[in-house]
Amino acid sequence: MSLTIDPATLTASAAADAIAAGTLTAEALTQACLDRIAARDAEVSAWAFLDPDLALAQARAADRSAPRGPLHGVPVALKDIIETFDMPTQCNSPIHAGRRTYADSAVAALIRAAGGTILGKAVTTEFANRHPGATRNPLDPTRTPGGSSSGSAAAVADHQVPLALGTQTSGSMIRPAAFCGLWGYKPSFGEVSRVGVFQQSGSLDTVGLCARSLEDVQRLRAVLTRIPYDPVAPLERAPRLALCRTPEWSEASPAAQQALEEATRRCEAAGATVTYLTLPSPTFDGWLKVHQRIANFEGARNFGHERHGHRHLISKALGEGRIRDGETTPVAAYVDAQRRAEAMRLWADDTLAGFDAVLTLSAAGEAPVGLSGTGSATFNSLWTLLYTPCLTLPFGKGPAGMPLGLQLVSERHEDERLFAAAGWVAAVLAG
Amino acid sequence: MSLTIDPATLTASAAADAIAAGTLTAEALTQACLDRIAARDAEVSAWAFLDPDLALAQARAADRSAPRGPLHGVPVALKDIIETFDMPTQCNSPIHAGRRTYADSAVAALIRAAGGTILGKAVTTEFANRHPGATRNPLDPTRTPGGSSSGSAAAVADHQVPLALGTQTSGSMIRPAAFCGLWGYKPSFGEVSRVGVFQQSGSLDTVGLCARSLEDVQRLRAVLTRIPYDPVAPLERAPRLALCRTPEWSEASPAAQQALEEATRRCEAAGATVTYLTLPSPTFDGWLKVHQRIANFEGARNFGHERHGHRHLISKALGEGRIRDGETTPVAAYVDAQRRAEAMRLWADDTLAGFDAVLTLSAAGEAPVGLSGTGSATFNSLWTLLYTPCLTLPFGKGPAGMPLGLQLVSERHEDERLFAAAGWVAAVLAG
Repeated sequence: MSLTIDPATLTASAAADAIAAGTLTAEALTQACLDRIAARDAEVSAWAFLDPDLALAQARAADRSAPRGPLHGVPVALKDIIETFDMPTQCNSPIHAGRRTYADSAVAALIRAAGGTILGKAVTTEFANRHPGATRNPLDPTRTPGGSSSGSAAAVADHQVPLALGTQTSGSMIRPAAFCGLWGYKPSFGEVSRVGVFQQSGSLDTVGLCARSLEDVQRLRAVLTRIPYDPVAPLERAPRLALCRTPEWSEASPAAQQALEEATRRCEAAGATVTYLTLPSPTFDGWLKVHQRIANFEGARNFGHERHGHRHLISKALGEGRIRDGETTPVAAYVDAQRRAEAMRLWADDTLAGFDAVLTLSAAGEAPVGLSGTGSATFNSLWTLLYTPCLTLPFGKGPAGMPLGLQLVSERHEDERLFAAAGWVAAVLAG
Repeated sequence: MSLTIDPATLTASAAADAIAAGTLTAEALTQACLDRIAARDAEVSAWAFLDPDLALAQARAADRSAPRGPLHGVPVALKDIIETFDMPTQCNSPIHAGRRTYADSAVAALIRAAGGTILGKAVTTEFANRHPGATRNPLDPTRTPGGSSSGSAAAVADHQVPLALGTQTSGSMIRPAAFCGLWGYKPSFGEVSRVGVFQQSGSLDTVGLCARSLEDVQRLRAVLTRIPYDPVAPLERAPRLALCRTPEWSEASPAAQQALEEATRRCEAAGATVTYLTLPSPTFDGWLKVHQRIANFEGARNFGHERHGHRHLISKALGEGRIRDGETTPVAAYVDAQRRAEAMRLWADDTLAGFDAVLTLSAAGEAPVGLSGTGSATFNSLWTLLYTPCLTLPFGKGPAGMPLGLQLVSERHEDERLFAAAGWVAAVLAG
């Protein structure tokens, strides 16, 4: 008996295995993704640039080539702030409309070196900030997919591409992944190259990714960090977990709160130890302001070209909001914020060393209705500031039937510990 | 009586003041720089790109414009890894020959917003690494100007331009400034935007600058950090200094050792307290290897486009040296290096808080004879790793009559404390 499966529905790992086994070609996989996009693009609008001929040409080249690595023949979408030599990078800003760059970003080059292809550029909010793009949540087109990695998450969730890269400065990867029912991953700060990625905040920006399985997350991470692809096995023992509701717990929806409590209860029932983690005062007092000060101070300077050459083309929200705020932040306030952030990180290093993972919320709830915003980053910015690796895995639904996410966090630079714990938790929650 | 002064010999501050007073035009200043370059370029070879018409057009635009800021009408050279929209950025690599980018780097935009103009691109070593360019030391063309900011230092020292930007990942700004008899400055890590600057190591790269006076250093720093230009007065009281010879003391020339001891003695005689600072074990054991591991691991990934698309065009020294080393560095070794670096920084934060500045060497000695290398970064990499602000000021001569530098270092993010201390030290040494 034979089973007909649309290749576009395969995970990246399953597709790569099929290509390696000779049962699928890169061209057929790419064509299936393009067919899915053609059928769905009017509703989802996930793409800032897509050239089917260029995508297919890359796929055919992969089919002609000897195996190059763990993504051989697998298409990947790049958030449209990540440069490639063969496509424009437009940052969802008229300032960069049609802009083509000379070179691949480091991550694009690493994906190609591992045999992967670049399907196209996924919609971002303006400069990966807050002003939204046209992308809709594929699970409910009246709702935001989240942001700023909006198109990245929507395209992967809608089976238009198996993998996508985004970035996170506050909550721009974890939140859209959660809103779209995906696995999302923000690596430990500094481990993935940002060369050729539009920069908002050198102290906070992190390349992230979304996928439809934990295995795919690990496969793409190995490519981006250029280490052997060697997936981490789920923990065999029950993990030491910390439940962190954060001081912003009251901002979460009842459904999100319940999902986190339920996940914690199930992990405990399966043998995990759970410690209730609170952020100590005064170290964490005003942590959100600390994050904003760093992001805005740096952003106001990083947007030098745009501010001084094209200010009238910057959205009012960005130009009169974060940029203006950053312009008027004194250096002493920035330095104070940096020192406070470092003290928070030292606390996190010490404290998280005692746990396999922290359980916390990925977002305040379901993806909100409407496309004028992308949701709140309240439950993400803290961990971005702390430089910790973060994963969101889909767990539960809200009252509208939209997915919720559970966020797991480990000590910085312990990304493999995070994967092991997440594998255990996902198995318990699926069981 | 009137005195005829070649405008090219003015400091940036004197030139800006003269332009503001209407006694000098930006065009006349730029023409004087171009005349100096025409007379000296065959010997010094400091420029990777120079278009006199473009430089003069910028100067004339400044002359037509209302005053825009503290660099109004002042030309600045940019190391040829720093992008501008109107000139190529070639990184001294055939891979990037003729490459033009879309946008200004943030620092170029900030210089223009402050009224400054971009005179041209100054020679860098290949990718701001070690493979040298053609630039010679203007004080002795048989000697290296240092690197990797080779052209930046040579052009400023030779009165071809009053100010230049470079970058430092190991010792690429402080060392060439010292070899050429200049003031050089590496700001606290993270305070100056690196948007549009070719990246080697996200954890270490810092934009730096060189100038012919401390006032000029502060003026350009204000522009780059977009803070009001408000020069710091020299300390009125005698400073608390720390003398740090570093474990690499034996690698320094007798002349460099003597200059540091002499400077210390004079500061003490003028009332400074001097503490002898040693780097504690085991925190600092193998610190140089820690620096190299971080730089090489990150560099191997950051050079993704070059490695995977154009590897045969990378110099053997870089491709088979640092890149190969970085490719074979395990993630665990990188993480260990990051953690060790952070422990070193915490020690430095605590320890340097007790001093106005550390006195240490800027380089192992005079600029070496020959153009096949750019000298050792041994006396620079430590402070780059520690994220501290660093200044080199010219003090003393070596046996060949070439300048030596005295390096001052303060606690990270205390750049203004460093300027105050440096003003005091410079006055004592001049007295």
